[in-house]
Amino acid sequence: MAKTRDPQYHRLVKKLINTERSQVLKSLLNSLSPNEVSGILLHLNLKHQLAILDLLEQEQVPLVLKELQDSSTVLEEIVGQFSSDKLTDIVEGMKQDDAADLVSILDESQVDAVMENLPAKSREELTTLLQYDEESAGGLMTPHVVSIVKDETVGEAVKDIQGYIKRQGFQMFYTAYVVDEHRHLIGTVTVTELLLADRRAKIGNLMNFDVVAVDEDLDQEEVVRIAKEYDLVVVPVIDKHLKLIGRITIDDLVDVMEEEYYEDIGHIAGTGAEEVTEPSVLRASRDRLPWLVLGLLGGFLTAIVMNSYENAILRIPEVAYFIPLIAAIGGSIGIQSSSIVVRGLATGAIQTTDLLVRLWKELRVGFLNGVVCAALLVLMTLYLTEDLQMAITTGLALVVVVCFAAAVGSSVPILLKRLNIDPALAVGPFITTTNDIFGIAIYLAITFSAPFQSFSI
Amino acid sequence: MAKTRDPQYHRLVKKLINTERSQVLKSLLNSLSPNEVSGILLHLNLKHQLAILDLLEQEQVPLVLKELQDSSTVLEEIVGQFSSDKLTDIVEGMKQDDAADLVSILDESQVDAVMENLPAKSREELTTLLQYDEESAGGLMTPHVVSIVKDETVGEAVKDIQGYIKRQGFQMFYTAYVVDEHRHLIGTVTVTELLLADRRAKIGNLMNFDVVAVDEDLDQEEVVRIAKEYDLVVVPVIDKHLKLIGRITIDDLVDVMEEEYYEDIGHIAGTGAEEVTEPSVLRASRDRLPWLVLGLLGGFLTAIVMNSYENAILRIPEVAYFIPLIAAIGGSIGIQSSSIVVRGLATGAIQTTDLLVRLWKELRVGFLNGVVCAALLVLMTLYLTEDLQMAITTGLALVVVVCFAAAVGSSVPILLKRLNIDPALAVGPFITTTNDIFGIAIYLAITFSAPFQSFSI
Repeated sequence: MAKTRDPQYHRLVKKLINTERSQVLKSLLNSLSPNEVSGILLHLNLKHQLAILDLLEQEQVPLVLKELQDSSTVLEEIVGQFSSDKLTDIVEGMKQDDAADLVSILDESQVDAVMENLPAKSREELTTLLQYDEESAGGLMTPHVVSIVKDETVGEAVKDIQGYIKRQGFQMFYTAYVVDEHRHLIGTVTVTELLLADRRAKIGNLMNFDVVAVDEDLDQEEVVRIAKEYDLVVVPVIDKHLKLIGRITIDDLVDVMEEEYYEDIGHIAGTGAEEVTEPSVLRASRDRLPWLVLGLLGGFLTAIVMNSYENAILRIPEVAYFIPLIAAIGGSIGIQSSSIVVRGLATGAIQTTDLLVRLWKELRVGFLNGVVCAALLVLMTLYLTEDLQMAITTGLALVVVVCFAAAVGSSVPILLKRLNIDPALAVGPFITTTNDIFGIAIYLAITFSAPFQSFSI
Repeated sequence: MAKTRDPQYHRLVKKLINTERSQVLKSLLNSLSPNEVSGILLHLNLKHQLAILDLLEQEQVPLVLKELQDSSTVLEEIVGQFSSDKLTDIVEGMKQDDAADLVSILDESQVDAVMENLPAKSREELTTLLQYDEESAGGLMTPHVVSIVKDETVGEAVKDIQGYIKRQGFQMFYTAYVVDEHRHLIGTVTVTELLLADRRAKIGNLMNFDVVAVDEDLDQEEVVRIAKEYDLVVVPVIDKHLKLIGRITIDDLVDVMEEEYYEDIGHIAGTGAEEVTEPSVLRASRDRLPWLVLGLLGGFLTAIVMNSYENAILRIPEVAYFIPLIAAIGGSIGIQSSSIVVRGLATGAIQTTDLLVRLWKELRVGFLNGVVCAALLVLMTLYLTEDLQMAITTGLALVVVVCFAAAVGSSVPILLKRLNIDPALAVGPFITTTNDIFGIAIYLAITFSAPFQSFSI
């Protein structure tokens, strides 16, 4: 009946490995879903990972490795230990698009050996898929796609499909693609419609002429957007001559969505592409370190900026107390604006031509919040320094810093996108660091500038 | 042929509204997809939104409003202007699960009027759906689900389905659910299998006994996880008696995924639930302000902390120069740890029982990166102050701050999750603010503590 996932399995498995109960382990493993097994593998070291894979039924191995595709370092380590015969078996047991993904992480000698062992037809299909950019529609698709012809009857189409399945093996499909004699995609019929139609009806009379298809070179992010826009479960892929060459299924699209979102979250948090379950501390450090060094350099620059105000700060040390606050608020406003823009650019809700519109909007939002924060800051400063003029200057400086932060946060991602650089890279550590440096410089410059200096006399 | 989305449409539409070319506008609008029209609406004010909706074909309106469901304030404003007759028509034109979502945002008098106008059967179904928590499987499902009986032949099952479609209208479906005489879900047959099977074959011989179903009360995040785990395009929903009561389709699951990810990004960036295309500056300000005020209060506390070290800072002002740096690095490490943990908790890769494991891992990663950063900081401090002992003290303090930040960042989300509070709420502004206050306090305490004070003499 209804299954639910048991997250505690991997503890049990570890115990079974440690107590060398391999028969129990074997029957347990083979009763789990590939996803569950891959989840367990992520919690083990290489030696135990290989032991587990040895205990699996042969047809389970490709499915489990497919699930590991999001954890590329783990997968690379594992397949690096496999013989070319074993790899060939695995590649043959996978869907073509997954096989291409797996082959693309092998080293050259392994690829050559696997390719040599494969039957000619699979080798040819795989070679074609490997030519596509991994992040394009071509790289996501499987070349196995059910197509039927306009002039057939439903009965003939069903026979066609049965013949196709005899040749290629059974695959779930939801939509049959209608092609003309040159394999141009001209329409679709859903399986539901085929099932319910009279077997003598002509496909041409059943089919929907409105087909949404994507070009083989289209970026995967765009493919996801189109699938979502038209609520597609399968997206057909066409080549430059509008011929049907493959299909992308929703499970691959969901994987892409996840990947992209995690990338965005990683950029905002400064963890880069790091994976949750990555077992190595060293690798996690390496992924996160660049962002920290960036923060460190930014911090060094702020120290230099503050150093240049040494005498002023010694005269009025209270000014320095508000520096962490100014940096925090400026950084927060910057990150708020930029993450809204990055999200909008990713979903298409914001266009790169919207620069001024967006800048204006974010400036107003930033200004409004800046004024509220400044009012509170004036009270806080008064409480701490009992100096009205200083309180007003600090509040004023905050508003300027906030507007600067909103401007940087909203325009940098759009400008980067125009330059074809992933705007998600700019958010997070980069935006906060920039705002720290300039925010503090602006704050000190305003607070210690001549017109506001009377309070220090 | 292949359509691609034109993001420039909304400019054209605005122009057409402004020049009052309503005939051109009408034919343009009705050639667009509901998603495109909803995208345009988000860029307009209420008056223009209503004008556009008036120009749409009647059957387009429910589809367009469904697409607006993610922008609830916009949708609320629009439907607030509708008569109850118009609302009833719209509700009747929607899938039941979407209709329930729409009805749930109406005000009480509108709900009563709509319910009164609806035919008895729809009213009953809608009332049932409205009882579920919006974020549960029951709240996501549609009660329209194709079920067939084990003892039928394929031919009889197809007739059943045709009869069902005659009563309920045509719906795409990919899987037929096999039930026993009490409507208990006992198996599945895919449409592909039905299509290709002999019409005289028994359903019982075709069906897969392994069914994954979810309980009506299951949280939507869990539903998404199960669908992903088993690569399901449709998830059947069962009640407490294991009876089949509805189905959830992948488009709704994809919407949930998006919602959850955007929520996470919003929490990390401190933009809350704010939507990209939300037209009102005031609302955007309101969504972001709480996080800024939190930062402000944190900043105030750091100012008080620094104030208590006034004399020490006046003696060695260089110490103050590194405060923004310490705050930035501590905040970054904290946010890196916490976002990795939040992501892991959301995907199930990290369990709440993993607290110590995770803490230990994040402490090691944080310590490693802290040591590298501290080494650089020692050099920076030396360059700026030419005081070796101060440089070493600063570096040492950074390592302590970093370990503290890693500990807070990794354990707070897990502890919150144990208390059944959404851990995503804790990341972002909350974690950085906490780290600012304590990080600076730790830094000042260490730097100005007795054993390290020789350099100031």
